Amino acid sequence: MNNKPTILKLGGSAITHKTKPKTANMRIINNLAKEISTAKTQRLIIVHGGGSFGHPLAKKYALTKGYKDSSQIIGLAQTHEAMTVLNGIIVNALIRHNIPAVSVAPSSFIITKGGRIQKLDIDIVTKLLKMGFVPVLYGDAVLDSERGFAILSGDQLIAKLAIVLNAERVIIGVDVDGFYTAEPSDSSAVLISHITANELRKLQDHAGKSRATDVTGGMRGKIIELIPAIEHGVRAVIVNATKPDTVRKALCNEPVIGTLITKE
Amino acid sequence: MNNKPTILKLGGSAITHKTKPKTANMRIINNLAKEISTAKTQRLIIVHGGGSFGHPLAKKYALTKGYKDSSQIIGLAQTHEAMTVLNGIIVNALIRHNIPAVSVAPSSFIITKGGRIQKLDIDIVTKLLKMGFVPVLYGDAVLDSERGFAILSGDQLIAKLAIVLNAERVIIGVDVDGFYTAEPSDSSAVLISHITANELRKLQDHAGKSRATDVTGGMRGKIIELIPAIEHGVRAVIVNATKPDTVRKALCNEPVIGTLITKE
Repeated sequence: MNNKPTILKLGGSAITHKTKPKTANMRIINNLAKEISTAKTQRLIIVHGGGSFGHPLAKKYALTKGYKDSSQIIGLAQTHEAMTVLNGIIVNALIRHNIPAVSVAPSSFIITKGGRIQKLDIDIVTKLLKMGFVPVLYGDAVLDSERGFAILSGDQLIAKLAIVLNAERVIIGVDVDGFYTAEPSDSSAVLISHITANELRKLQDHAGKSRATDVTGGMRGKIIELIPAIEHGVRAVIVNATKPDTVRKALCNEPVIGTLITKE
Repeated sequence: MNNKPTILKLGGSAITHKTKPKTANMRIINNLAKEISTAKTQRLIIVHGGGSFGHPLAKKYALTKGYKDSSQIIGLAQTHEAMTVLNGIIVNALIRHNIPAVSVAPSSFIITKGGRIQKLDIDIVTKLLKMGFVPVLYGDAVLDSERGFAILSGDQLIAKLAIVLNAERVIIGVDVDGFYTAEPSDSSAVLISHITANELRKLQDHAGKSRATDVTGGMRGKIIELIPAIEHGVRAVIVNATKPDTVRKALCNEPVIGTLITKE
């Protein structure tokens, strides 16, 4: 039996209505809960993004830059509360599909430093997995030892979890089919079916030097976060979580449309 | 300026409808949020109980005895989820009254051993207080290093927090006026206005030897939990959180009907 955990990321763009504040996409969430229930993946961790719950508030109160003035305090409280509401909706859908989902609040056990995870005690997540629970974490407003607070993205979180838990694979569910050479809506965009850590490093260098706009629909930043995990040996696949049966296939290791990311 | 924190416990019996499953008492919760907002207490921590959210599920799945069989796994997930729903209702009411409330999930950072808190990293709560947030914790289903899991009562939690945070005082809001000599509904019951740690120890010895039914409406067990905190020097007061303006008075150190508990 393979004891390495699987991490499933559910992107905020897939599980919420982007343009409607604090509106969950219940159809997608219920479909995903059903697919996760069918797949019966052992040692599964779910991490979800914030979508229209977390992002507008984080932006309104300029939380990503850290503490500037006391008016942000209520903003951080509101942002964290919005995330717990979305988390509650997802955990509830999972439990209704008989998945023993247990929310684990990142802000209750993670502190960042300059926006990067500094302190993360993995003990509780490990114990939950061992007992058969499905821990459900999320991108969150967290305390930061330098900036006061920071926004911890779900993407940073999955990369860290994948390393410390020695995960076998990370499945990243988004609202497009994978990583494209250009904005997915552009007719010239080509889906990259496989990319390696070395190739990702080049993308990262390019992004760092040129300060160019991310033309890949925001996906480049997300996958650059994954590099340390990929170099650690974790296999990642980006799939479309809004297309029926896609996440189930990915969880069951069946062939699926998407972008595979491996070390070599 | 006094930098010692104040801990406010909101009993499940006060903030939920005892006989209706998963039903919050919104009138009381909104009143309390308004009173807490008016009091403007610095360095405040709120801990709430489970009432009709947590208790029926914990009982249904026999969670208090720890892990017996796999059917309890979904039960623990359900119990934790119910507690996060109640917590969300309270945090939302507090934020609407402009209190920068941030939920801190006990199950995300506390592990018990044999039902008693074994591991509690207080770093995040301390940082939140320092920045001006109001951390909101709750009685929760948590992992237990001996029994698999356990129910951590809000009462055990406040006593531990009071000690590790060196709190000045603990205000315990319940649905009766304080600690009585008998069941409060009994006409012979007398409200005890002041009790000391020594007197509590005698009550504890008596309870231990006689295994008698708790005739004080369940209050004896709650205040026995407080003994270590009281002996540490924390001052506690039990008040009726369902009577208007009572919690505000207690927070503002104004005279209030209730039971004062002190070291000597």
